[in-house]
Formats: sequence, structure tokens, C-alpha cells
Amino acid sequence: MSVPTATALSQHIADVPLIDQHVHGCWLTAGDRQRFENALNEANTEPITYSGFDSQLGFAVRAYCAPLLGLPRHVDAHTYWERRREFAEAEVARVFLRGANVTDWLVDTGFAEGVAGVDEFAAACGGRVHEVVRLEQVAEQAAQAPGDYAAAFEEILHRRAATAAGTKSILAYRGGFDGDLTEPPAAHVAEAAERWRDSGGVRLRDRVLLRFGLHQALRLGKPLQFHVGFGDRDCDLHKTNPLYLLDFLRKSGDTPIVLLHCYPYEREAGYLAQAFNNVYVDGGLSINYLGARAPAFIARLLEMAPFSRVVYSSDGFGPAELHFLGATLWRKGIHRALQQFVDAGDWSEADAIRVVDLIARDNAARIYRVD
Amino acid sequence: MSVPTATALSQHIADVPLIDQHVHGCWLTAGDRQRFENALNEANTEPITYSGFDSQLGFAVRAYCAPLLGLPRHVDAHTYWERRREFAEAEVARVFLRGANVTDWLVDTGFAEGVAGVDEFAAACGGRVHEVVRLEQVAEQAAQAPGDYAAAFEEILHRRAATAAGTKSILAYRGGFDGDLTEPPAAHVAEAAERWRDSGGVRLRDRVLLRFGLHQALRLGKPLQFHVGFGDRDCDLHKTNPLYLLDFLRKSGDTPIVLLHCYPYEREAGYLAQAFNNVYVDGGLSINYLGARAPAFIARLLEMAPFSRVVYSSDGFGPAELHFLGATLWRKGIHRALQQFVDAGDWSEADAIRVVDLIARDNAARIYRVD
Amino acid sequence: MSVPTATALSQHIADVPLIDQHVHGCWLTAGDRQRFENALNEANTEPITYSGFDSQLGFAVRAYCAPLLGLPRHVDAHTYWERRREFAEAEVARVFLRGANVTDWLVDTGFAEGVAGVDEFAAACGGRVHEVVRLEQVAEQAAQAPGDYAAAFEEILHRRAATAAGTKSILAYRGGFDGDLTEPPAAHVAEAAERWRDSGGVRLRDRVLLRFGLHQALRLGKPLQFHVGFGDRDCDLHKTNPLYLLDFLRKSGDTPIVLLHCYPYEREAGYLAQAFNNVYVDGGLSINYLGARAPAFIARLLEMAPFSRVVYSSDGFGPAELHFLGATLWRKGIHRALQQFVDAGDWSEADAIRVVDLIARDNAARIYRVD
Repeated sequence: MSVPTATALSQHIADVPLIDQHVHGCWLTAGDRQRFENALNEANTEPITYSGFDSQLGFAVRAYCAPLLGLPRHVDAHTYWERRREFAEAEVARVFLRGANVTDWLVDTGFAEGVAGVDEFAAACGGRVHEVVRLEQVAEQAAQAPGDYAAAFEEILHRRAATAAGTKSILAYRGGFDGDLTEPPAAHVAEAAERWRDSGGVRLRDRVLLRFGLHQALRLGKPLQFHVGFGDRDCDLHKTNPLYLLDFLRKSGDTPIVLLHCYPYEREAGYLAQAFNNVYVDGGLSINYLGARAPAFIARLLEMAPFSRVVYSSDGFGPAELHFLGATLWRKGIHRALQQFVDAGDWSEADAIRVVDLIARDNAARIYRVD
Repeated sequence: MSVPTATALSQHIADVPLIDQHVHGCWLTAGDRQRFENALNEANTEPITYSGFDSQLGFAVRAYCAPLLGLPRHVDAHTYWERRREFAEAEVARVFLRGANVTDWLVDTGFAEGVAGVDEFAAACGGRVHEVVRLEQVAEQAAQAPGDYAAAFEEILHRRAATAAGTKSILAYRGGFDGDLTEPPAAHVAEAAERWRDSGGVRLRDRVLLRFGLHQALRLGKPLQFHVGFGDRDCDLHKTNPLYLLDFLRKSGDTPIVLLHCYPYEREAGYLAQAFNNVYVDGGLSINYLGARAPAFIARLLEMAPFSRVVYSSDGFGPAELHFLGATLWRKGIHRALQQFVDAGDWSEADAIRVVDLIARDNAARIYRVD
Repeated sequence: MSVPTATALSQHIADVPLIDQHVHGCWLTAGDRQRFENALNEANTEPITYSGFDSQLGFAVRAYCAPLLGLPRHVDAHTYWERRREFAEAEVARVFLRGANVTDWLVDTGFAEGVAGVDEFAAACGGRVHEVVRLEQVAEQAAQAPGDYAAAFEEILHRRAATAAGTKSILAYRGGFDGDLTEPPAAHVAEAAERWRDSGGVRLRDRVLLRFGLHQALRLGKPLQFHVGFGDRDCDLHKTNPLYLLDFLRKSGDTPIVLLHCYPYEREAGYLAQAFNNVYVDGGLSINYLGARAPAFIARLLEMAPFSRVVYSSDGFGPAELHFLGATLWRKGIHRALQQFVDAGDWSEADAIRVVDLIARDNAARIYRVD
């Protein structure tokens, strides 16, 4: 391994505290090795039949997480697992969360099975925690509430959002972006809500109600995050091309819209960030899963998107390694990309340091008002 | 910044005069800073709410245009702007156009609001200027002409094309490539023309008439340029995937078809250049907007496309920085890409120099007959 | 050209014998220069009107094949051709096939016009040869057989597959992946077969019968290869995005599914390999055609796909240069990609060596049972 010379840029990147603008809880209770290895595979919804360590993410865990457990870099998978299980899960969480150098975590509470709630997470990480409210969960709460669905949705959304940093949509998992995303008339909403309530009111897939929720979120005005691209195979990846959001974005006004993950559509997402004053992009989940290939991805995120329109997140869920590794791989990747721009004479080092600050925290602090 | 050793290849690239095979006029009259900063954003059709300098293009302006105004590389945006406004716009144009080392400019005259006409441009650049006739403008002229639409279109096209280098279509902005692109029967053309004339005959979006125009251009035989991919948000980017042109290309005969810009579909475009003897690709507009990331894009353009099927353009419009920067970033990018091929032992240096000549001018000179 | 230091990794890659898991016969009879140059262009189905040498593949032939004919690297095209024609075609084949260091060749016998059959190929290469049975050919044989089509298909498939390593589908060329791929009911199959037989029973494009064949192959359980992406222009490239296979894969059980070539959808294909325990990816044909750009492509194949889910092939057809060059460019490309991971500290060298073995042969040996 070559040892790069420390520069003002590399030092700045190593030190800058981050805002992780989209994350989930981490595990706090013990689990077996199968749970851990499956957590290193995002896309497969079945038990994997091979080692989850045999992937870019698995190799990155061995390279960068091992030292925090007192192990050498690149330690073998078996030794990593054996060492990890010597610690209580809460202790693992404490070590990795605090190792990430993140000051503010924006936690999506819409899916939290088996992971820390907001308060537990706050205790473990030692930083500030802000909630992100998932719109489909608000819908499911409104379906169970008495009276008019639309009024219930609006009431719950405003109540929950009052103390939250923003909202999030998983439309990508509920039919995809392709098709009409205009605001539905009230009568259609009422009919759709009645149908959905009659059928149990769980796992919202009704397009009318999904559209209704999005427009309520626009009206709220807090940043609205979209899951875009890479996720598990329940989602039809080809229906999550963010370009299908064009008509929606054309009518989205000033509400910040944040496109998360984006793989393999990060160039399309960057284009949208240039095309609309209110659109932001984030590599999210993809960075962890790309491991050694994350620098190439991060560089592509820096193509068409204005630098004031790029933010950071880990999308960590489950093993706290992911919350730490997201930050670590982002630091490595942004350094590789920007140092290359500087070395080529395309950017000054001061340019690079300024862009690091924008992405690491300034852009997120501004739109989420968390500083 | 590392100082690369001068090689025969780097020297050749620095010196080779270019044919800019798709460009627009530059500004000749003074404007304010908002005009300038918006001109650094292609996709957004509204006034941008942040600095246009905070982008790859903005950083590239500061890095490579500043020295031509007597400023240091990477000078801050404010100083750049203050210095620039000390010059008359026509003087700025003269400096940057002549700095590009371009012998022939092929000017698309279809949209020229606020920019130099062909004669003014010729005076400013000191090179040879050739017109590219926009088909949708010919259609609008035919709509205003008396008598049969098809005959009028044909007459105007042939008259204008007699002194022009080629034609251009912005079908990408008028419904996209997806769908039928066969030649419509005469009766359909007549009906569509009547409908369109009745509705005013402006901003052609009628599919029948768009198809008619394309097939007239094929029949003309001069190179036909297509806007492909990256542009402003009026265009549905996902409908400009050039693969939707496959059926059209299968029937396009020998007329050279030039795919412009192509981002993020440059690999698809390169494939088409391999698949059809008459298809050419060009990074155009994308190169300026990618700035420090242009080398990666240029390298991707050199994947599937035969080297006799790649051409160069800046697509400059407005600030003459863009006409200069296109050339500068292309030179830097092609050098980075080809030097890497040579260093890896994949190409000889003589191979690389020959390919530079093909793309810089030989391919364009051949199909446009401008040498 | 820089001379990289030999490392344990580079030595291992240079020496590792490969399994070429998808290949066709090579020429054994003499042909003219036009035949050779057209064989350097995959996508164009017409005689090319320029030199086939002016491409990444053509440059790679001159760089890496020339030495095996006793010529210097990068020798000019004319000299290469003149030297090549001094040898009998069978001698050319012997030289290049044996130069590839491939132990096992899996030969798709579905299209073999003008090239060696399995036995001739075995004699020329000196390695083990295993057949891959093309499903559309089985269908055409069943169409010509007497009696019930479905029974005939099943009988022929089982008989031929008994000694074969796997099956292959060219659905990409027969309508694409978009649309229903569920198993059709027996009555529909019988009707469709009758229609097809009545119309001659050649060149299967009937969707019902294509679907029938795929599900028979799933039931067989041997690996099923799909042509994906890059190929000749008879295929609508945009209809071969492997994401359209999602519904089919969701019901594909345990039968290994191998996605071949994949350009420009290699990242989508890698995602599918993460999403399904039974999906594998292979750069195939694309690696030869990308030449100096193959390393970037190979690196993208190593993004989302688990390392136990990546295999190697050359897809050589015609000139035996392609069978050799596939191996040579893969070795160069995987070295470039992995050495970069090691140099960056992301992987250990032992990691890299292990992944080389997985892709070079272990993964293929396991699913095809050829070791």
C-alpha cells in the first residue's frame, strides 16, 4: 500500500465532522453470524447462500472496521466475527457510532424492526439526533385513525414533523416513479382511503394515496427525501430512475427534494440537481456497498450537480459498522476524487476544501436547519 | 499540481487546430452578473438561486479562462467577474474565440437570441464559419410561407442548405425519440400542416411534421445532427436515449448522423457509432459542464465508437468562455485518456496522435467537406 | 510505457489458467481481409466502410496479438494482415487458442456458420471442451420433429443437455426482455407451436415458445446463460436491460442464471447478482471490444456483485485472436482494477489473489461442474 503525503486537503477531510442526513437505528441486541452476513447484502431478501464478507462491503468491513475492534486491517472474516461477538452489541454500536465523527444524525424512523429507537440511538452515538418522518408510515397511521383520512394524515404529519428535520418517501418500493404524480382531487383521496381501509390499511401501495402524501410533504416545506435506485429486490430498480420524477419536480416549488442512494442513476440525479434549484443528491447507501469502488461513484456524483446541492449520508441500518463505514468510505472517496482534481490543476486546494465543507455539513445544515 | 512531462502526444494535442462542429453565437453586448452565472447552468430554466460558479464548469472557468484575462488560475469568482466587466463583451469574445485555436466553426443558427449572428461571429473569431440549419426552424418558416407546406419546407431547406454544412434536429426537445420515426405519407403531412398553421405555426411539436423534416434531411444527404441527452429541463432526458433512434437509423442510408452531447448516454451513442456506418458521436456540451470530470467522459466516448466516427464540438452559447473552454477541456481530457492508454501499453504513441487528428478535425472535415 | 513491478498478484494473474465459460468456434478456413476486418466490429451487420482496425479492439489486436505472430507490438494493420495470411487459418487458431492458457472452453453451438465444430475446436485448442445448448436451436429442432412440440422440445433438450454444461438463451435478439416471462400454459404452447410450424418453424420469435423454453431450462437445473446488452444491431439494445428480467429471476429458483456481456448494463447486472443467490455476471464480449477501456469496465463489474458471482468468458467467434485476446485483456484489466484496490489499502493482496481465482475458474467450475 502506498502512503499518500498528508496535505491540507487530506487533513481537512480526516477531521471534518459530518452531518449524516439519512440513517436508521443500529442493533443493540446480540445476533448470530447469519444475521450479520445478511446485513452485508442489501439487495437479496432471502438468506444468502454464500459469505456476505465476499463483497466490496465485506472487504471494507475487514479493512476499516477491524482496527476499531483491536484487530489488524484485512483480518480474515472468521477472526473478525469471533472478535466482534466478544463485545455486547451496544458496545459495538458505541465504538462505531462515536468513531464516525458525526455531529448530527437524521434518523428515518419508518422502519425500525430490531434496531435502536431515536432515544436509544442518541444515547449510543453521543451526538444530536433528528427524526425524519416516513410518509408511508404516516399514511398507515392515518388509515388506522378515526374520521376523514386526509384530515388525519395532515394532522399526524404536522404533529410529527413539528419536531422532525424532514420527511421521506419510499415510493420507489411502492410502485416506482413511472406514471402520474400530480396531486389527486380530494374526492379521489377519500375513495381510495375507503378502499384501502376496507382492505386493512397496511403496506400502502395505492397510487392516489401515495401521490396525496407527496403533495402534503411539499406543502409542509421541510426537505423531502426520496429513496432512489439501489435497495432490496422488492423494488423494481428500473422504475426508480429519478428522471421519471421530472414532471413532479417541475411543480415542486421551493421544498428541498433530496435524492438518496441513486445507484446506478447517480448521473441522472446529478442532472436533476442542476436542473432544479430545490433538488439535492446523496450517495447514501451506495457508498458502503461500493467499498473500494466508492471513489469512482463519488466522483460521478460531482459531475452535473452544483456543489451546493450535494449532501452526505451513510443510510446505516443494523450493524453499527455501517454507520461508521459510510463516513470512512466517504472521506476516502471524496479525498481520492478531489485530490485528483487538484493534482490535475482543475481545482485549487482551497476549492476542494470548501467543497468538502459544503457536502460534509454546510448544505445539510442549511436545508435541515440543524446547526 | 504535478507537472506532466511534455511528450510528442501532449505537444501535438496542445497544437492541433480544431473543427468545432457544433456551436452557437457568443454574446457581443454587455450583461449583468446574473446573466453570466445563469449561463454557467444549462439545465435550469429559472434564475438560479445560488452561485453558478459553484459547479465543475464554474471552477473550470476560474482555472482556465482567468489567465486569458490576465488573472491567476483559480482566481475567486468575484475577482473574475469584476475583471471581466472591465472589457467590452466583444473584446471578451475576441480573446476567447481566438484562444481556442479553432479553424472552422459550424454554427447552429436555429436559436440566436442575444448572441452574434453568423457574420458577427466570423468577424470576432477570425476563422471560417459554416451554417448548420435547424430543421424545426425551417418548419416554422414553411408554416409562415404561402402554399403547400411540404413544398415550402423542401424549397426553404434546399435553399438554406445550399451554403450550409449540415442540418440539426431538436426532436429531443419536441417530444423525444421514443415512438414512430418513419416517413409520414404526404396526406398526413398536409393535414398536420393545416392543423399546425391554424394554431399559429410556432414551436413545432407535431410528430408527423417532425418526422417529415427528418426524412427531408436524410434525403438532402448533408450531415444531420441530433441533440441527444443533456440539455435544459424542458427536455425529458429519459426520452432522449439515442437507442430509441435504432429503427430510424436502420433506414437512414448513407447520410451522416451526428449524435451531440449524449450525456448520460455516451456509451449507448458509441454503440450506435459502431453499429451503423453513418453514425458519429460528439461529447459537445457535456465536456464543458463536466469540467474536471470531462476526462472520464471523453474516455467513455472512446469505448465502442470506431475512431473514425468521433468528432469534436464545444456547443458554446453566450459567454465566449464556453467556446474557448470546450477546446481547452477537450485537449486536457483527450490527453489524459490517451496518455493512459499509451502508458498502459495498449496503444502506441503514434496511434494516439493519429486518433487525436481524426477527432480534432479529419473526421469532421470529411463529412462536412470544410477543409 | 511504464513497467509495473512484478508482484505476487501480477504473477498470479499472469499464470492462472482460465475457464472460458462462453465461447464459439474459431475459423479454420482461409478468408479475405474484409472478413477479418468485419470480425473486428460486432454491432454492424453490414460490410463496414472503414477499417475495422480503427477501434479499441483493432488496436488491441495490434498490441497483443502481433507478438504471437512474431511481430512487434503495435505493428501497423497492413503488416499484421500480411503476416497473418502467411499462416494457414488452422495454424493461427492453434497459436492463439493455446496462447490463452484456458483449460476449459464452454462452446455455444447454436450458431456455428463458418467456424469450427466442437470436435475441431477441441483438436485446435488442446483443452477440454464442453457444449452449451442454445434453447432457440432446440426449439427449431422441435419444430421440425414429428408429434407434440412440447414433448419433442423436452426430449431434445434433455438428450442434448445430458452431455452439456449448460443452456443459453438469445431472447435478447428475439424480442427482448421487456414483457411477460412467466411459464405459458400447455394449451398456449400447443397453439403457438402449431402456428409456428405452419409458418415454417425457423428463427423463433414467438413469445409463448420462447417463454416455454426458458422454463424448461430452469427445470433442467443446469446453468442458463442469457445474452445481455451489447451485440449486433438486430437486437434492440434498450430492450436488453437485465432489470427487465426481475420478475423472471424472482421465480427462477436455484438454477444458476448467467448474464453475459452486459454492456452498458454491467452495473444493473451486478446488482442482480447481489439480489439473487442464483445470478452470475460475466463481461464476455464487451472486454474484447473495450480494449484499452476494458479495465474500467471490469472494475464496474466488481461493484455490487458478490465475488462468488462473477465469471469469465471471451465470447470469441471467428478469428482466434478473439479467444486469446479475451483472456489477455481480462488479465490486464483485473490486474489494473485489483492492484488499485490493494494500493489504496482497501483490499489486501491475499484478498485480490483469492478473487482472481474465484473469477478465473472456481466460480465457473462449481456451477458447471467442469473441474
